Amino acid sequence: MSSAPRVGILGGGFMARVHAHAARSARAELVAIASSSAARAADAAAALGVAQALPDAASLVAADVDVVHVCTPNTTHASYAAQAIAAGRHVVCEKPLATSVDEAQALVDALDEAGLVGAVPFVYRYHPMVREARARLAASGEALLSVDAAYLQDWMLLPDDENWRAGAELGGPSRAFADIGSHLLDLVEFVAGQRIVSLSATTRTVFDQRGDASVANEDIAAVLFRLSGGAVGTALVTQMAPGRKNALTIEWHAADASYRFEQERPDELWIGERAGSRLLQRDPESLSPDAARLSRVPGGHPMGYQDAFDAFVADAYAAIAGAAPDGLPTFHDGVRAAVLTDAVLRSAASGEWIDTTARARRSVAA
Amino acid sequence: MSSAPRVGILGGGFMARVHAHAARSARAELVAIASSSAARAADAAAALGVAQALPDAASLVAADVDVVHVCTPNTTHASYAAQAIAAGRHVVCEKPLATSVDEAQALVDALDEAGLVGAVPFVYRYHPMVREARARLAASGEALLSVDAAYLQDWMLLPDDENWRAGAELGGPSRAFADIGSHLLDLVEFVAGQRIVSLSATTRTVFDQRGDASVANEDIAAVLFRLSGGAVGTALVTQMAPGRKNALTIEWHAADASYRFEQERPDELWIGERAGSRLLQRDPESLSPDAARLSRVPGGHPMGYQDAFDAFVADAYAAIAGAAPDGLPTFHDGVRAAVLTDAVLRSAASGEWIDTTARARRSVAA
Amino acid sequence: MSSAPRVGILGGGFMARVHAHAARSARAELVAIASSSAARAADAAAALGVAQALPDAASLVAADVDVVHVCTPNTTHASYAAQAIAAGRHVVCEKPLATSVDEAQALVDALDEAGLVGAVPFVYRYHPMVREARARLAASGEALLSVDAAYLQDWMLLPDDENWRAGAELGGPSRAFADIGSHLLDLVEFVAGQRIVSLSATTRTVFDQRGDASVANEDIAAVLFRLSGGAVGTALVTQMAPGRKNALTIEWHAADASYRFEQERPDELWIGERAGSRLLQRDPESLSPDAARLSRVPGGHPMGYQDAFDAFVADAYAAIAGAAPDGLPTFHDGVRAAVLTDAVLRSAASGEWIDTTARARRSVAA
Amino acid sequence: MSSAPRVGILGGGFMARVHAHAARSARAELVAIASSSAARAADAAAALGVAQALPDAASLVAADVDVVHVCTPNTTHASYAAQAIAAGRHVVCEKPLATSVDEAQALVDALDEAGLVGAVPFVYRYHPMVREARARLAASGEALLSVDAAYLQDWMLLPDDENWRAGAELGGPSRAFADIGSHLLDLVEFVAGQRIVSLSATTRTVFDQRGDASVANEDIAAVLFRLSGGAVGTALVTQMAPGRKNALTIEWHAADASYRFEQERPDELWIGERAGSRLLQRDPESLSPDAARLSRVPGGHPMGYQDAFDAFVADAYAAIAGAAPDGLPTFHDGVRAAVLTDAVLRSAASGEWIDTTARARRSVAA
Repeated sequence: MSSAPRVGILGGGFMARVHAHAARSARAELVAIASSSAARAADAAAALGVAQALPDAASLVAADVDVVHVCTPNTTHASYAAQAIAAGRHVVCEKPLATSVDEAQALVDALDEAGLVGAVPFVYRYHPMVREARARLAASGEALLSVDAAYLQDWMLLPDDENWRAGAELGGPSRAFADIGSHLLDLVEFVAGQRIVSLSATTRTVFDQRGDASVANEDIAAVLFRLSGGAVGTALVTQMAPGRKNALTIEWHAADASYRFEQERPDELWIGERAGSRLLQRDPESLSPDAARLSRVPGGHPMGYQDAFDAFVADAYAAIAGAAPDGLPTFHDGVRAAVLTDAVLRSAASGEWIDTTARARRSVAA
Repeated sequence: MSSAPRVGILGGGFMARVHAHAARSARAELVAIASSSAARAADAAAALGVAQALPDAASLVAADVDVVHVCTPNTTHASYAAQAIAAGRHVVCEKPLATSVDEAQALVDALDEAGLVGAVPFVYRYHPMVREARARLAASGEALLSVDAAYLQDWMLLPDDENWRAGAELGGPSRAFADIGSHLLDLVEFVAGQRIVSLSATTRTVFDQRGDASVANEDIAAVLFRLSGGAVGTALVTQMAPGRKNALTIEWHAADASYRFEQERPDELWIGERAGSRLLQRDPESLSPDAARLSRVPGGHPMGYQDAFDAFVADAYAAIAGAAPDGLPTFHDGVRAAVLTDAVLRSAASGEWIDTTARARRSVAA
Repeated sequence: MSSAPRVGILGGGFMARVHAHAARSARAELVAIASSSAARAADAAAALGVAQALPDAASLVAADVDVVHVCTPNTTHASYAAQAIAAGRHVVCEKPLATSVDEAQALVDALDEAGLVGAVPFVYRYHPMVREARARLAASGEALLSVDAAYLQDWMLLPDDENWRAGAELGGPSRAFADIGSHLLDLVEFVAGQRIVSLSATTRTVFDQRGDASVANEDIAAVLFRLSGGAVGTALVTQMAPGRKNALTIEWHAADASYRFEQERPDELWIGERAGSRLLQRDPESLSPDAARLSRVPGGHPMGYQDAFDAFVADAYAAIAGAAPDGLPTFHDGVRAAVLTDAVLRSAASGEWIDTTARARRSVAA
Repeated sequence: MSSAPRVGILGGGFMARVHAHAARSARAELVAIASSSAARAADAAAALGVAQALPDAASLVAADVDVVHVCTPNTTHASYAAQAIAAGRHVVCEKPLATSVDEAQALVDALDEAGLVGAVPFVYRYHPMVREARARLAASGEALLSVDAAYLQDWMLLPDDENWRAGAELGGPSRAFADIGSHLLDLVEFVAGQRIVSLSATTRTVFDQRGDASVANEDIAAVLFRLSGGAVGTALVTQMAPGRKNALTIEWHAADASYRFEQERPDELWIGERAGSRLLQRDPESLSPDAARLSRVPGGHPMGYQDAFDAFVADAYAAIAGAAPDGLPTFHDGVRAAVLTDAVLRSAASGEWIDTTARARRSVAA
């Protein structure tokens, strides 16, 4: 396969638009799209400039495509990904990869057996300043001491804020943690180059009912965690923090320096030192190679969410073409997210610390 | 007693200087000072402009003073405060009031019996924007949902950063939490108008030894907590976060609005709303009465740490003169800090959630 | 012509890459590219995914394309644009459109006569928060009182920072003002909906020589200006401000509110009011229609430079397809930039205020 | 005279309160106060804790005081200062020292003849981070290239915002520039260690009438300037910028580094470099000696306006006691402000650049 794959998209919502733009930016051919109905597929094909609208997932995975992008509701990810793998397609699957650890692991097994590539858009890894923090922390070799993490949104603030994500059928057993907490701890581990080995959590579901629908999962999760190197951390995850739109913020404290990344100002990285702290602005001239590689434009020309997504998809396609791009989030990372989500739910239920090392069969740093 | 009391100061270090300035600003008479030796007392008297240097604590509490300020190492607070009370003096005592709950409670009992005033400088309560957050939260009556808190410093970062606070003799069983975590959770509760009802914590002591001295207490504490109204929160407390000097930051998320206070920029309060978030700058023209009362200078003229301390001491003296200033932190709040410190240490040891309601005999909101 | 034009690109540098990405994002067909040599054209074609490399500008404008993007050195813009117009092509031409007012005006005349579209990437107009400021200012109808503007870079800081822009042959008589000052005052006028009617300026050329090359134009320009409605303003423009990469910042003070836009944090707009100032974060849910139209992703998902460029090119193509997109910068705006540049150079030479109303034949607000 | 002088205060408004606090902080004896009436003086004496209320300025300067603080309306400063000098008193006089250059110069001459100390509270010089910028710029020896300055307030925004400062009788011929622009350019020169050698300005008086009173002076001034070393700069000064309370901001661009100071966040200094810009937080451990000297509290404990004022008054008293504190603003700086104010008014009237070197008989650096 050449580096510009033939692409099929499952789903016609906002995320499908983001995937389609990234695929086009990587010069892929947008071959086909399917959505929840033939009519919606036709609309999406027109809106996104995809050549062909197909009636359902079955016909999409059977179409002449190299890779399938799964951009459907959460509880459907696993079965569509499985269908695509069965059809011999590479897969880019929205998170959560699955709503249980076993299901997620089964996808990895199927993928490995088939020799295919599976990528999951833990896309915040693709901000250059995240890579910069990771490179500096790795280069220093200094011990990590603590981590202060939060992911705050407000789109589920009001009792009548309804969404399929809040229901059991399409959303699954975890919402705030599975949807955004998983991003947060993925980034904690990715930059640290270490695994979370145990955690203690508490969760809240503020409204039992939203509009006419029952709520099946949490609005808020608060988590204590320990990393393999001994660092401790806190993570607050909520979809009910007024005024916060997508405020993923992490501060890593190592023995020589601190690193603070705020997703809403992704071109900045605060580097704390005993004397001489800095607010580093993205500037490819002075970044580490990995961060410079992801810098599409010069310093002072802000990069954003779509830029990160474009870079993620480009790397996924590079992996499909045989390369091994550093830091590409794969189905293994999807399993990891399922393990952590499961631990959060179990700790919140029992009040106990939960070991999170069990299924982590591949280390982040490997 | 008039509103300008006669003041004695115990201790000759940095905090004594801050207390002395605040006392003078409140037009008190600085009558006498004692320190760890007669020579140090003489130096401090000259440096701080105190009339008389006394050889020891006993002579200070026996001198003709209305109020004693205790500014000595942590483990000595309780006994000096007890001596002052026994001599019939009002007391302004540095935190931690005591290194155990029982000791702290005994001081409250003695104070109440003697009909004296005892104040503890949880001084961050005296930033006008803290009062503004508290007033708005109280006025709205909306439920608090979650709290994101951190108190980060770096002055104990290196293995050779030594201090009496790290030892058992002068520092006590808790350091990071007792010294700064107590400030943090005091402010969480003060603004929330609610008690923390339970917590789960983990702590780290990074170095067993600093220089030649054994380390007896933690460098880092990570805490999960639940408030009486159901809100959940996280608190990270560390004295080993490179680049962080005194970074107390709290964000309260209520059902209608969020409030974020950063102690290092105390004249600002971020108010988050679904639409229309604001970075409110202190401006007495548009603040609540309590916040306006504490505004010494107009908007745009920054207020700082000494201003807050001056206001705290002025309120303590007002209480001594018979007033009941709103929000004055008293020995009851010192007991509360001891309860929370004890819970953090016990949870870190056991891995379990600890009930923190037991000794909270007076509610914050009362 | 359909809405997806056939595109030719002149130039193979960084800006060509930005234009190519935007063209592809708008689903245009990238037909041909030419650069300073056939070899460079071939390289660029491969790098940017353009179908065909052509040997020179003449063959490019003669190729089967609807629109030519001119991305070559400054002094060549006018003649290439003229060739493209003569060949009946629409033109997207990098700024400065021309290095003299007469030349720029001649292009407008040729374009109008031929009934073609000519766009100039004053691309900062395409940040949603710029549109938001403009919409609010227009809706309020309140008088503008003053403007504080700056555009600070540092890439020409050192004596050996060489660039073709500094020379007479490719750069022209003005550098800092023509290259970045023109962006700044375009944005001042665009948001104000008013023209600058007079200005006073001083300029500096810090190094006569950079490396082996003579410097023909200024590094720094400082400008006082008056707007048609009576407001006064200052603008500092420099390419020698250490630490500033692309710091375009403007604060407009109207009688009811102030608006501050910082290009390096383009998703934020500070709105100042007597009481209740806000740091508005881009959120399509609560923006004016024009700003919401340009919001590619939800609030909290940062947008950047490439997003703005994509939107500009999409609007240029919409204009080519017959639409009249609001706020598209055209060759008329290119003339305006030439008028202001000329006034800055003349004022700096004479020490006098210069009238800048002469050639402004179309109002911004029209 | 000992280092704790006997102090008399003229005026009973807000500034008198600030001066009184600073005097007490410096352990001065607050001997007497006079205000616009005997009744107001009595009120002020009680409110500020001054021993004695006197009926008028004549009796105050005749009282047994070492130093007189003049805190009265602008147009009265010069004559009260002259009376105090004639009575042999040292003087701390609010700015503007006088409303004409000649009057200001006459005060300097009288002071020099009498061998007395005269200080003018250009108090922003007393923020440690201002001293830090000055020390670093001086130590580097690198050329200054440009300066971006602004001083923005909003308290005169509305047509019915009345104040004696706007009238001819008490305010004088310049308001925005004389009151706050003078602070701004004092700081520009103080940190630069250079004089402004020429300027071009324009001014606006937005309302001819405020309430029932005629307006005699400008609301807004916009200024271009050149420094002796060749740097150019812009300064916008307005009392009608909605949302800006006291936003004095200056950014100095030198050949090796930039320095940005914002008065509303005085504990921070942005230091820009080609690579590695920093947001330096005040921390006495890592500051230059002069900045460390003015650091009353450790890093992370914010300092504010009153702290700066306290330090200024302490230095003024030290000068009275015979010391020569570095950077104390004196009556010579008051003359300088008058020269610059005069130049702004003349340039605004004529449209011409004005030489501002004439009366600058002492260099800043001297």
